[in-house]
Parts: sequence; structure tokens; C-alpha cells
Amino acid sequence: MSDELKKLMELLKDPALSNSVRLGILLSLYVIGRTTFTDLQRSTGVSKSSLFMHLQVLEESGLIKVRKVPTLSGPRTIVEITDKGVETLKKYIDLIKKIG
Amino acid sequence: MSDELKKLMELLKDPALSNSVRLGILLSLYVIGRTTFTDLQRSTGVSKSSLFMHLQVLEESGLIKVRKVPTLSGPRTIVEITDKGVETLKKYIDLIKKIG
Repeated sequence: MSDELKKLMELLKDPALSNSVRLGILLSLYVIGRTTFTDLQRSTGVSKSSLFMHLQVLEESGLIKVRKVPTLSGPRTIVEITDKGVETLKKYIDLIKKIG
Repeated sequence: MSDELKKLMELLKDPALSNSVRLGILLSLYVIGRTTFTDLQRSTGVSKSSLFMHLQVLEESGLIKVRKVPTLSGPRTIVEITDKGVETLKKYIDLIKKIG
């Protein structure tokens, strides 16, 4: 097995990336930088409680930051990718590019 | 959200790709074409029964073919990617390339 493939398999074992909902969230945030909880719920199609759980795993891994901001229509949950998150996703994308 | 990102999120919802072990298996097979059950167990690090389950999902989706071949040291399980599997992975890799 090539070195790139081995690294890719290792990266996919990381709890943060080992679930495709989380991988999808990270890929989205890698492109758009930040989004809202509501938008993520729409794009992932998972339930509120499930999304909360996934975001918690990602935040505990230091890949995203979740914060509540007050708005006129009530508090809004903003989800942002961190530098570490960008770095991790860059690694993943670069490996995919190498094998593809 | 960009069109590529939407397509990527949709693709990640596919049962075949919605689990990173399966995604890892497919990425490996995309590169090396075919492998053995034993090698996949080593590279994924999952249990025998778990690997069987993942391979079953992938085979039912028509993305891989699993067959037993007799060898001098007993039957060996060979896992191969199908044309549909290559096509699906190509789609995934191309989308990743576009967003990255």
C-alpha cells in the first residue's frame, strides 16, 4: 500500500473524520469558513440532537468553534472552522488529490 | 453553498460512503483495484465481523465484489472494486479536488 493511502486510512480513523456527517461539516466549513447551526442542519439532514453531538466531537478535537450570538430574532449558533481544522482538512484534501 | 459542496454533501449521505471505514476501503480499492480480506483488516483496523458487515453494505450497493478463491493454504477472500465503484469514487475525488 502506498504511503499516501496509509496516511489517508490513518486520518479517516481520527474520531473527528471517522463519521461522514462530521467530514461533511468540515468540508463545508473548509470552503465557507463559518456557517450557522440551522444551515448545517439543512445541509447535513441530521436531527438537532445528532448535529449537536457531532459539533461537540469536532469542537473537542479543536477543529471548530461553536458560539452563540444574540440577534434580534433570538440567539443564533455560529459554527467556525479553526486553524487546526483548516490544517487537518488540507491534509485530507491533499492526500485525496495525490491518490486521485 | 456552492454546487460542488452540495453534491459532495449528498454523496456523503450515500450509505456506502456515510461511514469512514467504508470510504477508506473504497479509496484503497480505487488505488489498488483488488485486495484480500486480511489486508483490509490490517489497514482498517476493524474487527472481522465489522469488516464483513462493511463489505456487505458495499457489495449490496454494487460498488465492490467479494469472492472466495481456493488456495493451498485454504480459501482466501478477494475484494475487488466494480466499475460502479470506480465511478462513484471518481465523482467523490473530483468534487474534493474542485473544492480544495
